[in-house]
Amino acid sequence: MSEATTRNERRVLVAVDEGEESMYALSWSLKNIIFQNSSDTLILLYVKPPHAVYSPLDSTARIDHPETPGYLFSSDVSAAIEKYGQEVADCVLEKAKKLCKDLQNVKVETRVEIGDPRDVICDMSQKLGADLLIMGSHGYGVVKRAFLGSVSNYCSQNVKCPILIVKKPKPSAGAGK
Amino acid sequence: MSEATTRNERRVLVAVDEGEESMYALSWSLKNIIFQNSSDTLILLYVKPPHAVYSPLDSTARIDHPETPGYLFSSDVSAAIEKYGQEVADCVLEKAKKLCKDLQNVKVETRVEIGDPRDVICDMSQKLGADLLIMGSHGYGVVKRAFLGSVSNYCSQNVKCPILIVKKPKPSAGAGK
Repeated sequence: MSEATTRNERRVLVAVDEGEESMYALSWSLKNIIFQNSSDTLILLYVKPPHAVYSPLDSTARIDHPETPGYLFSSDVSAAIEKYGQEVADCVLEKAKKLCKDLQNVKVETRVEIGDPRDVICDMSQKLGADLLIMGSHGYGVVKRAFLGSVSNYCSQNVKCPILIVKKPKPSAGAGK
Repeated sequence: MSEATTRNERRVLVAVDEGEESMYALSWSLKNIIFQNSSDTLILLYVKPPHAVYSPLDSTARIDHPETPGYLFSSDVSAAIEKYGQEVADCVLEKAKKLCKDLQNVKVETRVEIGDPRDVICDMSQKLGADLLIMGSHGYGVVKRAFLGSVSNYCSQNVKCPILIVKKPKPSAGAGK
């Protein structure tokens, strides 16, 4: 399909998160890659971490207090975390959509998925028939990255379609002089 | 500079080599990224391996036969290797330029550099003020890759500008049925 797709019918998947890098990647791509007058479809993807990220805490609770029901968080707390996660997703996608507001003929879609961002981004690229995946190079925060490794490294090695990794330039040393 | 560069004044560096992947990356980019009517400058970069790649052989020669002048290859052989390297570079760049022949307003430049492709590509991206680096994901052949690791992995982690890595799609399983 990629072979047959002409330049004006592309499906471009942009992985966005709460980091500045991913918003920079989107802005840069809007200026450089996405054509105003094309019939590109731009899909903004936000990946929420799975509930499983709390399981180490759960396990500790089970070992220390085997009489407990096995979960550190009450259903109220879980619901609050879930709600917070959804609010972050909405906020990120709203911010991303605002950046796209000047696009005229490009269709903009949003998706929220749950899971390990590395796998979800690669899977969704294929499922959604993306002709191009765009992402920042240092998304998903310092802490998550320490556990997950670099999401962009993983994706660049595993995704089937072309991948554009946009690094936010560091402020130049001379700035402000 | 990248911040101020408008879409029509980009300097796009494409790393090409003797592999099919890099030619596919160039073709894909010509269709999807490089604009016919822009004033983009497209720089085709070929990196020749340094003479130093032969040094392990030289060292062995020195250890086994300390009476030898220290080089396994005579100057004739070295010259032949050098000539062959230049011919490969010319051939690759000629093939790449042919792919670009339909570009009307885009300026096409070629560069040949010598060194470890990982470092040279990253350095040249910066030296040439590239707004975007494009490369295939599996360039530089199986043998070189075994020694060097993946050039595209290294570049995606170390280059300062945005990087587009284009993977050549595998023929679909159903092809030919």
